[in-house]
Formats: sequence, structure tokens, C-alpha cells
Amino acid sequence: MPKEILDGITSDPAMMGWMQGFPPPAAKRIEAAKGNHMRFPWTRWSFSNMREFCPTVRVSRGQGPVTPLPVALRDDIDALPVTLDDGTRTTWAATLPLNFTDAMCVLHRGAVVYERYLGVTRPDSRHIAFSVTKSFLGLIAEMLIAEGRLDPASRVADHLPELAGTGYADATIRQVLDMTTAIDYSEDYADARSGIGDFSLALALTPRAAGYAGPEDMYAYLATLAADGEHGKAFTYRTINTEVLGWIVARIQGERAHEVYSRRIWQPLRMQDDADMLVDPAGTPFTGGGLNPTLRDMARFGEAMRNDGAVGGAQLLAAGPIRAIKSGASGADATRSPHPSLPDLVYRSQWWFFTNGNPVFSARGIHGQAIYVDPAAELTIARFASHPIAANIPNDATTLPVFRALAEHLLRI
Amino acid sequence: MPKEILDGITSDPAMMGWMQGFPPPAAKRIEAAKGNHMRFPWTRWSFSNMREFCPTVRVSRGQGPVTPLPVALRDDIDALPVTLDDGTRTTWAATLPLNFTDAMCVLHRGAVVYERYLGVTRPDSRHIAFSVTKSFLGLIAEMLIAEGRLDPASRVADHLPELAGTGYADATIRQVLDMTTAIDYSEDYADARSGIGDFSLALALTPRAAGYAGPEDMYAYLATLAADGEHGKAFTYRTINTEVLGWIVARIQGERAHEVYSRRIWQPLRMQDDADMLVDPAGTPFTGGGLNPTLRDMARFGEAMRNDGAVGGAQLLAAGPIRAIKSGASGADATRSPHPSLPDLVYRSQWWFFTNGNPVFSARGIHGQAIYVDPAAELTIARFASHPIAANIPNDATTLPVFRALAEHLLRI
Repeated sequence: MPKEILDGITSDPAMMGWMQGFPPPAAKRIEAAKGNHMRFPWTRWSFSNMREFCPTVRVSRGQGPVTPLPVALRDDIDALPVTLDDGTRTTWAATLPLNFTDAMCVLHRGAVVYERYLGVTRPDSRHIAFSVTKSFLGLIAEMLIAEGRLDPASRVADHLPELAGTGYADATIRQVLDMTTAIDYSEDYADARSGIGDFSLALALTPRAAGYAGPEDMYAYLATLAADGEHGKAFTYRTINTEVLGWIVARIQGERAHEVYSRRIWQPLRMQDDADMLVDPAGTPFTGGGLNPTLRDMARFGEAMRNDGAVGGAQLLAAGPIRAIKSGASGADATRSPHPSLPDLVYRSQWWFFTNGNPVFSARGIHGQAIYVDPAAELTIARFASHPIAANIPNDATTLPVFRALAEHLLRI
Repeated sequence: MPKEILDGITSDPAMMGWMQGFPPPAAKRIEAAKGNHMRFPWTRWSFSNMREFCPTVRVSRGQGPVTPLPVALRDDIDALPVTLDDGTRTTWAATLPLNFTDAMCVLHRGAVVYERYLGVTRPDSRHIAFSVTKSFLGLIAEMLIAEGRLDPASRVADHLPELAGTGYADATIRQVLDMTTAIDYSEDYADARSGIGDFSLALALTPRAAGYAGPEDMYAYLATLAADGEHGKAFTYRTINTEVLGWIVARIQGERAHEVYSRRIWQPLRMQDDADMLVDPAGTPFTGGGLNPTLRDMARFGEAMRNDGAVGGAQLLAAGPIRAIKSGASGADATRSPHPSLPDLVYRSQWWFFTNGNPVFSARGIHGQAIYVDPAAELTIARFASHPIAANIPNDATTLPVFRALAEHLLRI
């Protein structure tokens, strides 16, 4: 298959016929053992159906009522003129396939003003959120800090004796939260021998070769890591920081992470659907990237962050921890964590803050997953995508100016 | 571990500490790669958490209201005197651990009169139903027959050209439904080289050895099977019959089996919870045994069968196909399918009928899963269990007299 010529339209997973037929013919199958569930263009199908390929647990919404999301659809968004970073002039709608969008939900002043599901993604699809998963955990950690149950100045080995002999031992919780740890590990997805490649094998998200002798699970992998410099000096994005944090949170709460996500976020926010969460071979939920929510539930979480815990007029989450994340990001302390290619971007408690211009914050997951909140425009966007490249920088140029154009448009209303 | 001395109390999965700890220590882990998720005593935990070990799909209940189950708990059931087949006199409550019961729900005249969750099983646990899965499909097939979309006299190869060269080619749909096909395949769970052992490897429910060169999925396995005698002469219980039927149903409906279960049963019955369903490496749902519902939803299905499709006064499923199963079982045609060790037992359309004495019917799954319906006593029982032995005959002696004693007790009220 000429993968290189597939764009966001020609890679449509329904058109390509993935997993169609009873059973699907060999050429149309996606199989975890082959690993194509993690490779484009098959990801355009698999990212909406991860539980078919991986062991998962359920993040329960409980049995209570659902937080209603009012719907007030606007018909002026698809045709909205936008200018991309390279100067191309186009429309909002034309950027959906450009970003390999699977689903998009826009909330303005708390109401759904735009909602699209493309390819095989549906309102009830649980789509992998990748690193957006981290931002849920970041809020949970801030809840524990606010409750006095987690000291941000305490050190990793205080909580996890298993990591006492590793590079993580003397890193503080704050450094882990803000990813200023110095660890010998690289997050280069294009290099199969990078840290993230080894981590994916430990997680068993990608298939292990016969005779694999590496770490059997995520935490066994964490225990192999050495330091590489001094903690607290520079921001470097590493998924393993979140796994260390998830481990600490589970220890403190005495619950597996998916139970914490359920009790701390899914139930109080009155989500509409249970979510799926990937687990490693030891049954540990993958807090660095394994959450699979429905689009509207991801949007509800964005709304709660925008409104300091209130959704639909009800205070569903405590305001303090959310405000702590926002104020922490604007402090001098955090500004030393610029993203290399986006100098106005600051990372704080597993959230991204755009500090140059109108303050905006975001949860970002590889292949285009996003929660994007512009408080001034009263705007929350939730997006699922299956972009071929495992990073966000390549789609930022066709995403951020588009989101900003919508914010400006809504500010004029 | 001295497995041989573990009984229904000492094998309690919470007491044994399976999967406890963050992460669980090696000795407390259950791992699909090791295969202990399918071996006692680990099954006492894994059977309530199969999605953590296997790829699964979701049987959706949709978004509608839930069929309420009135609750009118009785306090006289635990102490009910019962006499087991070996003459032992005991009480209802004492038989729960005897049968390695994980959960039990009793409905009398449509109300929940008794409900217990033991070990790690909870009201929202999706517990594997094993061959109870078949009975759902049996009703779906009868729906298609009633609608004129499936001719019970048509032959397997009419629907599945892939099986034209196999022992199944000229078997009729009725023979498949009632398991009177003659196929060279044995369902002996104690023999790893039996048909069911090979089938489990094709399904990838049990781990494949390095260098496994057998069939890659369930249907590839079905295509290897030869005939062994003449179809229609004798009942022999074979899970593969149900897989052939599931394949035909998916073809006719143009949907994967979990979508059919959702549209045909889960949504109209207004189930309270989505169910999980195991899939094979080709993504095909395992209709012979892969359904994982909650206990109350399994009970709702039993109630619908008892009341010819009505639950809580509302006619939720068509009565005709259910009546067709019941009347078919009482016909002379079906009585030639006695279970070898239970001569009064008749198999019809993937359901078991006790024809000796008070008419009772049942859905039965290995390790003690059961729906048991006694229409005269207005009684429906749903049970999940994790009995060490992969059959029902060993627990029938401590189950059937107990269920009958309860029916007699309720008939006296």
C-alpha cells in the first residue's frame, strides 16, 4: 500500500475497509500481534477501538445522573476563514482532514456549538487520548497536594523505595509533575531503540520480539533508569515522569489508577460514559497515555478546568487544585520550562500553558489529541485525531492558528 | 501453593491477595502471557475481570432508561434446608462456597428476593458467562428464523462458502442449533490436545507456545474440521457449533456479533450495563463463550425468557422466538438429544431443558455459570461461579437439588 500518498481523506478508515467483513479478510485486518494497531494508516481505525487490541480496565462513571451539555449548534464554523502558519488560507472544515481529525467538539459558553465525528469514530467511541491522560493525573496530584496528602517537596524515593537506587530517587514531586527531572531516557518516537521504544515494549503496547528479555512491566522498566544531569534545571518531556507520578498516587490512595480516575474525576464530574484504560502486563493502568474516553467526556473535563471545577452551574470538582495549576503556570518558577520549538509554551502539573498573548491552556496527546481552553473566549475544544506522526509539533502549524481564529471569531459575537 | 486443598472458602480471591498491591508482587499476579488467568485458583479473580487479560469489545446498552428490577429481599433463603444428591443435609447458604459461587441473584415473581456478591465480584463486575453466551445467540437465531431470514433446513455451506469443504458443509442450521452435528472434535477440557484445546489456542484465550503454527483465529480453525458420522443422529455438546452459528448470524445481519447482541437483546431489554465480549485475533466476538455481563443483566435475560419477552410488565422482546424454543424442546424431535449423564436433559436452540418432572430450563456455562428458570415457581436464578472443574456435571449434584428446594419453598408461599 502506498502509505506515503495517503492524506486525511484518502486514509479514511471506513473507506479503506479496515476490519470490515465477517471475518475481515487478511489484508483488512488489524492485529496486536502484528503491531499494525500502532501504525498509520491502521491507527485511523484502531485509535477508536483500542480495547480490541490491548488489555484494558474500566474507568467507571458510577450510576448517577449525567452532567448535561446544552447544545446550541452554530452553522458559521465550517466556513470560518483561517490562515495556517505557512500562510495557506483555507477554512475550518478543510483543516479537519489536514489534521487527520477523528472527532471534534467545540463548547462556547458551556454549550456545544460544533460537533463532528469522522471515519469510524462515533459519539460513543472510546478514542485513545494518549498524553491527555497525563493532564487528568496532574489534577489528581494537585488534589492530593491541596489535601496535604502529597508534599510537592518530598522525593520520589520517600514514596517508592523501589526507585531508591535509580535516577529518580532524589527528584521532587514538583519536578516530576513539571517534567524537570534529569533522566537518561529519550522520548523520540521515530527511534525504536529510544527510551519510549523500550517503555512501549515494557508496557506491551507494541509487540515484543521472540526471546524478549527486557523489563516485564512499566515499573520494572522505571527501576532501570539512571540520572542524566541535575533535576530541576530544565524541562524535558518524558512520559515516564507521569508513570512515576501515577505509581505514587496509587500508593497514596491505595487504589489502582483507574479507580482513582473514577472516584476523583469520572464520578464527581458525572461523565456520560465509562472510559477504557490500557494496562501493562502487571495490570497497572497506563497513566502516561492509556486513557480512552468519549469525546464529550473529554470536553466535560476541559470545561471543568476552564470553570475552576464548575460545569453547567454546579461545582463538581474543588476549585483550589485547578487554580493552583493555573497560577503555578504563571509564576516565574514555571517559565523555565519552555518547549523547544514553541518558546511561549510552559508545562505545569501535566498541563501546557501558552503564555505569549491571550492566556490559553491545553492537554496534548500525540497524533493530535487535544483539550484546548481559551478562557477569554469562553471556549473549550476537544479533539481526537490519528495523525501519522507521533508528535504534536507537526500538526501545531495547522491546528493552533485554526483554534485561535475560532476564538477570535467567538470573541466578536 | 497446595491447590488441592483449596475449597470455596480458602480460595477466596480477596483473601489470597490476587492483584493486590501497586504493582502486585510477582507471586500475586495474574498474567495472560502465563495463562494463569484461565487456571484455578487465579480464576476466582480473573473470571470477574477478563478484559484485563484479553482483547474485548463492548456490547452497548445504548443510552435509554434501565428496566427496573423491583427488590423484595427475603430473609428465609440462606437458612433454607437442602439435601444434596449425595444425601448431605445442609443449607442454601452453605452451598455457595461449595459451588465456588462468585455471585447469585434470585428473582421471584419478577422481584429480586436474594442477591449475593462474594470474593472480588461486585454488582458492576462483568463476569465471564462462558456457554451462557450461546443461549443469547440461540434466541437471536430463533428471531431470524421467525423473521424468515434464516431457514432452519438450510445448510451451513449455503451461508458460509468457506466451510464448503469441511465436515460442516451439509449440516443444517437446526442441527447446528441443537448440536446434533457429527464432527471430528472433542470438548474434553482436561485434555490439552482435544478439539476445545486447539480451539482455545486459535481463539488465543490460552497462551500459544513459541513457534505456534496452528490456525490464526476461530474461523480458520473451523475450516480444518472433518465430519465424524452422520449429522442429526445424536446430540454432542460442541462449542464450535455455536461459532458456526455466530458466523452465519453475523453474515445475515451484516454486523459483528457484539453489535447484534446489543441491537437484538441489550438495547431492547434496557439492560443496566454494557457487557464485555472476548474477541479472537481476527476481532471476531466469541459467541460460544465470550460474553461478560453483570449479574443483574444476566438475570434480566432469564426473566425475559421466563415471561416470553416481557420484563416488568413491558413486552421488550418478541414472544414468538422464545415460545418456539420452549415448544421445540418439548417436541419428540428434540428428545433425542439427552445429555449423557443427565438423561432428562434436552438441548434445544442453545438452551437446556429439564423434561423430567416440573419443566425447567437453563443456560449453562462451564465453571458454574447459570441461568435457571422454573416457570411454575415463577423463579429465575442467575449465578456466576469459578468452580475448579471446567464442566457443570461436577457441580450439578450440589446445585440442582438446591435450586429445586428453593423452587419448592417458593411454591409454598
